Amino acid sequence: MTVDASRSGQTSEIAARATGDVVLSIDAMGGDRGVSEVVRGMGKSLRKNDRLRYIIHGDGDLLAREIRRSSLLAERTEIRHASSVIAMDEKPSRALRHGQGSSMWNALDAVRQGESQVVISCGNTGALMALAMLVLRKTPGVDRPAIAVLWPSMNRSGYNILLDAGADVRADAADLLKFAVMGGSYARNALDLARPRVGLLNVGIEEHKGRPELHDAAALIAEAAPEGDFDYIGYVEGGEMASDRVDVIVTDGFTGNIALKTGEGTASSIRTLLREAFSYSPLSRIGALFAFTSLQRLSKRIDPRRVNGGVFLGLNGTVIKSHGSADATGVSAAIKLAFTLSDRGFAQKLAARVALGGGSEAQRGAMPT
Amino acid sequence: MTVDASRSGQTSEIAARATGDVVLSIDAMGGDRGVSEVVRGMGKSLRKNDRLRYIIHGDGDLLAREIRRSSLLAERTEIRHASSVIAMDEKPSRALRHGQGSSMWNALDAVRQGESQVVISCGNTGALMALAMLVLRKTPGVDRPAIAVLWPSMNRSGYNILLDAGADVRADAADLLKFAVMGGSYARNALDLARPRVGLLNVGIEEHKGRPELHDAAALIAEAAPEGDFDYIGYVEGGEMASDRVDVIVTDGFTGNIALKTGEGTASSIRTLLREAFSYSPLSRIGALFAFTSLQRLSKRIDPRRVNGGVFLGLNGTVIKSHGSADATGVSAAIKLAFTLSDRGFAQKLAARVALGGGSEAQRGAMPT
Repeated sequence: MTVDASRSGQTSEIAARATGDVVLSIDAMGGDRGVSEVVRGMGKSLRKNDRLRYIIHGDGDLLAREIRRSSLLAERTEIRHASSVIAMDEKPSRALRHGQGSSMWNALDAVRQGESQVVISCGNTGALMALAMLVLRKTPGVDRPAIAVLWPSMNRSGYNILLDAGADVRADAADLLKFAVMGGSYARNALDLARPRVGLLNVGIEEHKGRPELHDAAALIAEAAPEGDFDYIGYVEGGEMASDRVDVIVTDGFTGNIALKTGEGTASSIRTLLREAFSYSPLSRIGALFAFTSLQRLSKRIDPRRVNGGVFLGLNGTVIKSHGSADATGVSAAIKLAFTLSDRGFAQKLAARVALGGGSEAQRGAMPT
Repeated sequence: MTVDASRSGQTSEIAARATGDVVLSIDAMGGDRGVSEVVRGMGKSLRKNDRLRYIIHGDGDLLAREIRRSSLLAERTEIRHASSVIAMDEKPSRALRHGQGSSMWNALDAVRQGESQVVISCGNTGALMALAMLVLRKTPGVDRPAIAVLWPSMNRSGYNILLDAGADVRADAADLLKFAVMGGSYARNALDLARPRVGLLNVGIEEHKGRPELHDAAALIAEAAPEGDFDYIGYVEGGEMASDRVDVIVTDGFTGNIALKTGEGTASSIRTLLREAFSYSPLSRIGALFAFTSLQRLSKRIDPRRVNGGVFLGLNGTVIKSHGSADATGVSAAIKLAFTLSDRGFAQKLAARVALGGGSEAQRGAMPT
């Protein structure tokens, strides 16, 4: 364990490459539950995966106290002191002006420098996207980066992908096409789907439904599907978020954010009602005892912590936004996703996909996943 | 019981007024479950409410067969034969051209003629809105009518109101202001709230979040709140659909439709998983037995049939769209809502509200609910 405000990064990366390790850059500040919860999540993941290593950014003394509680963590974590923290309610515009030197900035910069492949942050989403665009820059060919989230579904993988979940409140037809291409690549790498099915979120499945820009987007996406190695299945409705008819659901960031939070809110209300139902009477409490294992399985299936991590797509590097309220289990889920994506070289594959998106048949031999 | 293709309406209305009865105009065709389910729902409501009377529109012979199974129904229902039916997949534009004489058209026309106060239809939503605008006309001052739905919530009334749930995919700031005024009036009449709290759906609660038209709408709604007899509480997020911080949630019809269907879809997925969890093992089945009563209570709280009926606001007359898949319980819920609104003279109050929306303080003495 080294507390180092300067860059010992290059040696770290060389060491990591030699061992086949994956190095994650973690902004430990800004989560609602504090640094200790983030560090507990990091420890949880380390115990399951010996190819993981961390560069952690934040208050050096605080981080050192937390990290040294576990010798495994201390051994596989490099601490980088940051002089400031981006507040959860800080406007993106202010973060851009004053963010340099913050834990979030430094975490992103470690990816820019090539010391790490993926950034994880529990901090302010808007600021993270703004700083990520500034530090990492957009992938050539992408105008609006998007946030992709995993949505528990009836599919065999257990998930559908929804994007944009809120990076930008607007998206035109060309943006929606890029979302389809990026979402397809993400599905291949995160969910192991050879040929993901992409749908466009709309108020009905009939061709004439919805806004005019959706009709344009539908035409563009259908045209790009063969080369993009995905199938375009047409419009999907809000009721099909968890459907096994689709793998990737494309929409603008306003609609996606509302849908995501509505779904999460509904699931969370029902969990509360379910808990109340089982503590209502002595009989129902006995019932809960008998059904305990089955209820645990259900609870796990609808547990929002299992799907933690919105992935920012369309930047030169992978950025994962962990929920501000994520506990150790949630942080560990985000780390697992980061490891998988990094291990597969997802950022490079995505950039190649976007670059070759309109490429000719001749280029297809070299097409990345 | 009379089968009458001409208009015996005026006598009906006079009779109804004399007795204090409420007459509902019901388009019995077009629902996914057929006419018999609609008629069963009508019977269910009649047994609970002796002030109800119906004018039912559809295939005269078919309706007569169903209605005559119950003497109570036969006594309190007038059958009107219609020569055609609007199909569930018919485009609104086609319905406008060819809809005259259909059961849907006739059901609306009975309200236009003053024979009935409310229309209920299980048919095609788009066609119903298009025909309703043509037959009933928009309330003066309303540019875009909206569909308001009840959303199960943590509020004492058990519901929040969401509008627009999908009448129009667009809404500008002035439309959103009208939605706030109309939603407030609906909340006073349907939920008995003296001073409803109105919120604007957005991707965050901070002032700078979201699209520019939302910032304009926020300013207009805040300004109209004192005269509109509602409180404007600012932005609400998708996660607050069921919140007890708000009574009326205002949004455009695209976002509202996606949110509604996402919430319904999530609740329905969890119901399926819950059923699976309790039939998974012998122990869990025993557990379900013990917890039966509590689970029934929960099931009732999250049962989508309890909240059946999107209400079209902004027309000269009240139109209730029942779910296409509504069973007798769902149809009966829509009838109950129709009765309440009609009994309170909601359509007249709403029109007065919209007309006086920008009125001076001096006019406030005559302000309707």
